Amino acid sequence: MSLEFDTIAAVSTPPGEGAIGIVRLSGDEALAVADKVYQAGKKQLAEVPSHTIHYGHIIDPKNSGVIDEVMVSVMREPKTFTREDVVEINCHGGITSVNQVLQLVLQNGARLAEPGEFTKRAFLNGRIDLSQAEAVMDLIRAKTDKAMYLALQQLDGNLSQLIRNLRSEILDTLAQVEVNIDYPEYDDVETLTSKLLVEKAYQVKASINQLLQTASEGKILREGLATAIIGRPNVGKSSLLNFLLQEDKAIVTEIAGTTRDIIEEYVNVRGVPLKLVDTAGIRETEDIVERIGVERSRQALSEADLVLLVFNQNEPLTNEDRLLIEATNDNHRIVILNKMDLPNQLDLAELESLVDPENIVKTSILTKSGIESLENKIAALFFAGATGERDATYVSNVRHIALLHDAEAALDEVINGIESGMPVDLVQIDMTRCWDLLGEITGDSVQDELLTQLFSQFCLGK
Amino acid sequence: MSLEFDTIAAVSTPPGEGAIGIVRLSGDEALAVADKVYQAGKKQLAEVPSHTIHYGHIIDPKNSGVIDEVMVSVMREPKTFTREDVVEINCHGGITSVNQVLQLVLQNGARLAEPGEFTKRAFLNGRIDLSQAEAVMDLIRAKTDKAMYLALQQLDGNLSQLIRNLRSEILDTLAQVEVNIDYPEYDDVETLTSKLLVEKAYQVKASINQLLQTASEGKILREGLATAIIGRPNVGKSSLLNFLLQEDKAIVTEIAGTTRDIIEEYVNVRGVPLKLVDTAGIRETEDIVERIGVERSRQALSEADLVLLVFNQNEPLTNEDRLLIEATNDNHRIVILNKMDLPNQLDLAELESLVDPENIVKTSILTKSGIESLENKIAALFFAGATGERDATYVSNVRHIALLHDAEAALDEVINGIESGMPVDLVQIDMTRCWDLLGEITGDSVQDELLTQLFSQFCLGK
Repeated sequence: MSLEFDTIAAVSTPPGEGAIGIVRLSGDEALAVADKVYQAGKKQLAEVPSHTIHYGHIIDPKNSGVIDEVMVSVMREPKTFTREDVVEINCHGGITSVNQVLQLVLQNGARLAEPGEFTKRAFLNGRIDLSQAEAVMDLIRAKTDKAMYLALQQLDGNLSQLIRNLRSEILDTLAQVEVNIDYPEYDDVETLTSKLLVEKAYQVKASINQLLQTASEGKILREGLATAIIGRPNVGKSSLLNFLLQEDKAIVTEIAGTTRDIIEEYVNVRGVPLKLVDTAGIRETEDIVERIGVERSRQALSEADLVLLVFNQNEPLTNEDRLLIEATNDNHRIVILNKMDLPNQLDLAELESLVDPENIVKTSILTKSGIESLENKIAALFFAGATGERDATYVSNVRHIALLHDAEAALDEVINGIESGMPVDLVQIDMTRCWDLLGEITGDSVQDELLTQLFSQFCLGK
Repeated sequence: MSLEFDTIAAVSTPPGEGAIGIVRLSGDEALAVADKVYQAGKKQLAEVPSHTIHYGHIIDPKNSGVIDEVMVSVMREPKTFTREDVVEINCHGGITSVNQVLQLVLQNGARLAEPGEFTKRAFLNGRIDLSQAEAVMDLIRAKTDKAMYLALQQLDGNLSQLIRNLRSEILDTLAQVEVNIDYPEYDDVETLTSKLLVEKAYQVKASINQLLQTASEGKILREGLATAIIGRPNVGKSSLLNFLLQEDKAIVTEIAGTTRDIIEEYVNVRGVPLKLVDTAGIRETEDIVERIGVERSRQALSEADLVLLVFNQNEPLTNEDRLLIEATNDNHRIVILNKMDLPNQLDLAELESLVDPENIVKTSILTKSGIESLENKIAALFFAGATGERDATYVSNVRHIALLHDAEAALDEVINGIESGMPVDLVQIDMTRCWDLLGEITGDSVQDELLTQLFSQFCLGK
């Protein structure tokens, strides 16, 4: 069933020390390569049944040196991740041990897999389409259960199915147009064909629009909401941050770089992953106001999808507060009136003249009151509609969103063309382009360079 | 076969994003717990054959929500890591996905495993002894292939066998002593028994001594050699460091901490893992000499097992050089005369009056000459004897080394006791103590607290 590829291998577990490390092989020679380095009495992996697990040792055939004690999983095509023969060598998860086993299989006939190459093969061998392949990576990178749910739905093929249906409808229409042009039965064939095209264009456009309505929400769920917590010293920023970071809400992610790791922090608020911007800076210093003029702070603000601006309602508004309001006027912003447990000193009327009263929340982080309203506000600000509907099909991937917008534009060309009386055979080109653009989402029409670029963003071993 | 334990679960792959993440379960209920959350048509894991792999989904039984698409490995006792029923759930390796699957099995009857608890069960269920259990962790932490080889040998039971033989000989002798005391056949039974004891004490002591001779080498192979590269600016420290770090010699290890990661760097020189001390500092600054007075640098030097002191032989010795020599007089030290490609300006006679000429190596790191001698020197300095002998049994673990020293001391008590005419039944106590101490290595005689403390140093999921 599978195409002809060489046999690839990679470490498929995260880098670092752990209880188990996996070296995965895929390809026609996977079993043969594994057999060269695997030893367990007279047992040959080539002869064992599919989907079975075997104890043994990895031995360097050059010097008979034992490399590790392992469990080997044998999975024969086609019921595997890649639709090729797959062997997974489960080592004691040390860095040295896993790397040595990898080196050994590379010396014995396998080639080091590129990032995402296992998933790429699953795509090339037809097990999954391109949007499903992208979902595999989204699943790994998911920061919240909602993001995971989106990825799983996409992996299940919900989006693909929807796109395929649209493409199939477009193709039917195009075929009909072709017939009408080649065999004109009636005199008004041009009018009829135009009507056919424009109706289909409106209909497909409506479906695309519906999908695009989930896009901003989907994108947030997938990528997280860059959030900056700002305010004068001692208004409660750190308390808020700590509150958000506690209670299993904190998600700390390591992003492996070439030389060292960057640590990003996420908190999960009602399923919305807040990606805390420059939290180190916010934690380390209290002179945010001074630094507001600093390029780095302005940068952080301009990149923030959400600003949580904290005031102490036990003190009057200061010029610094007004400066912070001004600096964040272009942001999605929630104003937090903190320290509600203390007497009011802040002029609410003035504040409401400066910021949208809808986006003011009163809290006492100390006594934990008002937090729920804050979380509701965050959720409400970003999830206007379909939140919580478990059966909606979301579009969340920037590439897909861009293609849908392009497809929509192509449909507008169809509509404008027909309405301005353009000949059907010219309009037909735009309709075909729409069909092609939708095909790029599922990978039915796709360029090699795009594939290379897409899969290179995957992690190693997947 | 296995003792009665509850069912435990943990993530067994390293933390972080990867292609595959494993949630491992072990215990009587492992299959039952997994079946509550696993769905694949009507298939029940409880009914599948041992050592087989199954595709399916992890579903939250509370709301039927899909958590992940998985491959599940079923391994029934006794042929498993723990000698209990083991289930490994291979998830798409995202942090969220792996944690959600873990949470779900914990909600459905499993308990979160303590660090090392899987290996502890392998020990408690009699599959491996204590020194083998410790080897499991050594294997994971091994920095070089030699360290791995040591760990594998220990895991194979080489050390255990040697210790068991010694204990069995001691026990035979103690039994003979008992018989002699209870049923004295001859008048000179006291003399004969004393002779028996002292001969055995000498014999066991010789074996222990032989083992202890491998200890310093074993310890270095296991833990790495803390190495500081020092010298004045522009003598070639960075080039040396870069040379060592290149060519697959660099081993970068992440040690997971509670809040952030510390990165240690190792290089592998002829199988000797050099753990580079304060390399960041060495790289970032060239004013090592200034900083020699700084507490942190003195500290790094005092902790170094090896100092590589680099001079530029194209310049005369300076007072700074002499200061560095003085500061490292108490260290194992190799003096590197670098830039041999340039004319000699350094007074070799003076240098040889200040440092052991044996430990001077001439190099040109630029032209890559002399590096081999340097590597030979490093290896020679630390591997006096048995290096490379693939069949020697090493002792490398500090706990084992301490117990062997204690056992040796107990034997000295036996010898001194007999030689100073102490009654046999008093001497016998020391011999028994030796027997006990050796038993602590294999875990045949061992306290609960020790076990708890030992296994707590393991990584999670092992």
